[in-house]
Amino acid sequence: MIEQVPVSPLDPRIGRPLEDLDTPTLLLDRAASDRNLAQMAAFFRDRSAKLRPHFKNHKCVTLAQRQLALGAVGMTCAKLSEAEILVEHGIDNVLIANQVVGAIKCERLARLALRAKVSVAVDHIEQVLAISRAATTVGSTVFLLIEVDIGMGRCGVSPGQPAVELARRIVDLPGVHFAGLQAYEGHLVNVLDRAERTTRARAAMQQAVETRRFLEVARLPVGCVSGCSSATYDSTGAMDGVDEVQAGTYATMDRQYQRLAPEFEVALSLLVRVISRPTSTRAVLDVGVKGAGAEFGVPSIRDFPEAQIPVFMAEEHTVVQPSPDWRIGQVLHLIPSHACTTCNLHRELIVHENGQVVDVWPIEASGQLT
Amino acid sequence: MIEQVPVSPLDPRIGRPLEDLDTPTLLLDRAASDRNLAQMAAFFRDRSAKLRPHFKNHKCVTLAQRQLALGAVGMTCAKLSEAEILVEHGIDNVLIANQVVGAIKCERLARLALRAKVSVAVDHIEQVLAISRAATTVGSTVFLLIEVDIGMGRCGVSPGQPAVELARRIVDLPGVHFAGLQAYEGHLVNVLDRAERTTRARAAMQQAVETRRFLEVARLPVGCVSGCSSATYDSTGAMDGVDEVQAGTYATMDRQYQRLAPEFEVALSLLVRVISRPTSTRAVLDVGVKGAGAEFGVPSIRDFPEAQIPVFMAEEHTVVQPSPDWRIGQVLHLIPSHACTTCNLHRELIVHENGQVVDVWPIEASGQLT
Repeated sequence: MIEQVPVSPLDPRIGRPLEDLDTPTLLLDRAASDRNLAQMAAFFRDRSAKLRPHFKNHKCVTLAQRQLALGAVGMTCAKLSEAEILVEHGIDNVLIANQVVGAIKCERLARLALRAKVSVAVDHIEQVLAISRAATTVGSTVFLLIEVDIGMGRCGVSPGQPAVELARRIVDLPGVHFAGLQAYEGHLVNVLDRAERTTRARAAMQQAVETRRFLEVARLPVGCVSGCSSATYDSTGAMDGVDEVQAGTYATMDRQYQRLAPEFEVALSLLVRVISRPTSTRAVLDVGVKGAGAEFGVPSIRDFPEAQIPVFMAEEHTVVQPSPDWRIGQVLHLIPSHACTTCNLHRELIVHENGQVVDVWPIEASGQLT
Repeated sequence: MIEQVPVSPLDPRIGRPLEDLDTPTLLLDRAASDRNLAQMAAFFRDRSAKLRPHFKNHKCVTLAQRQLALGAVGMTCAKLSEAEILVEHGIDNVLIANQVVGAIKCERLARLALRAKVSVAVDHIEQVLAISRAATTVGSTVFLLIEVDIGMGRCGVSPGQPAVELARRIVDLPGVHFAGLQAYEGHLVNVLDRAERTTRARAAMQQAVETRRFLEVARLPVGCVSGCSSATYDSTGAMDGVDEVQAGTYATMDRQYQRLAPEFEVALSLLVRVISRPTSTRAVLDVGVKGAGAEFGVPSIRDFPEAQIPVFMAEEHTVVQPSPDWRIGQVLHLIPSHACTTCNLHRELIVHENGQVVDVWPIEASGQLT
């Protein structure tokens, strides 16, 4: 059971129908999101691998707390500033799944590790040395996961011996603890055919598992191999040797992941208004790319499949043409193509059930970039 | 002369070299921006048309105040919430260059008009009636510009008679004042060839000027025709019958406008760090599309023309390949392709001169969507 966060009596929008809200505003269908959270939690209940949801998806502490209440072992973050916000809110086990570089950041990281178990990805001894120095200065220990590049071509050492060499350096240093490996099959999570995605993602992740064996043969114990996504939790996330799954988007879903993991429901939408009907076949909506992440295409329009192709999205406008016979002032629900960047553009989630606002959850980490 | 805003002694970053800053962070070269502001102000000093800079570019009140101090007649905004922020900061003449729709917004608009001269674009009698009712209720007057579609295919009535018909309705209503026309040649501002852009943009804007004449013949006085951009200020902005120029990007500039209006300097940049060198030819930087508006392409890298093509931009990463021989921790300046969406992703501008931080200006309207 998800513990219900008490409804704040202070926000005058609570209890109002959605149609009364100012627009554009970001909505979360609580029942749908709850079902997503419960379904993913159930998948991991009897497995050796554990769920460490990715905070970068929703950036909302309340949602993170609900994920943890259902058994998640901790949260994954993209940025140190996201981890700081989680720890400020009492969440004491965070993984920053990226490299943390620079004197200011290393000091922030070392201080954060005084208050929580903080893990971070590394792929070079220079990152490790800087973190070790900072942690030693403040008297904390930072847990390090060596990132292995399993084909995405972004960060990470090559699989196998390079990870062993870096791990050997880490275990000799103060202020840092070699905790395992991180590997993300990000180049494959968008493969639409699920069987093909499973085969290719498992082959990619197998390189991380083999690297784990290399390390163990070298007597470098691997506490954790962490990776995967909402599109691969049931393939790579179910492999022997994979310990933690960093799924994020399943909590909110979006148009892109709806195609990849249709077992989860789209809980996130943008409430928008028709602001102009310049012609009988054109409608203009009051949101653009400043309010809707469009990296994976323009949004779709809920309940209007025939108008699935807004022809143009500007900074503050979405132009639908040809459009249904909408009236000026009519509200619509857009399904953004990319939940992660959409949540980053908003400061709160309007939580609804049965067409009414039931709560307002701040998106505490919106705009956190450092 | 631009009046220098006093430097806040409170921010510990002031006086520090840029290399010491945490990253990613948004920088403004004050001298370059000042030259841009002065140059645009000089262009309009002896013209009948006046400058009404677009706040949506930088969303920073300090920059707006500097534009006004140089002679701008007021500010243009994209959103009512931006206008509210400007009025809260004492700026008393604002144009919302978009349609404002919905009961909550109409009431906000009407109340704002109690405190400042507020103009707004309309293109349908339904918008007008709602604003008239709201303004009558609170006892204010909202100034209305009829938007004319001069070819962009977004909002706006057709040129000519439709504007006359809507103006006739407006002049009979309480709480609203027919103030003129708005017309934006947005479909042409990105035409790279300047002579072609000038010819086509003037032909487009001529439709607004002719609509003005239609209205005047019908004894509907047109107080103002407002439109244009930083790429057309010197063409459509210099036409007889055009009164206000809504140029925005010239204040900060970006990679896209650098090609369109190279007489202005790129004052905006993103300070980023190299966080990973996974191979000898690949570098990964600590910003992605959550921190850099990329609608017009990936950013360029200042001082490194040979690396102008980062191959991939993810949410939090920019991957440069092949990359120069950068070291982990090295800071770089990215020139974003789109200043307007980039400023919207940040909360402050780090203002610098000669490699040092000289001030920190909040981006008060960052994330304002309603």
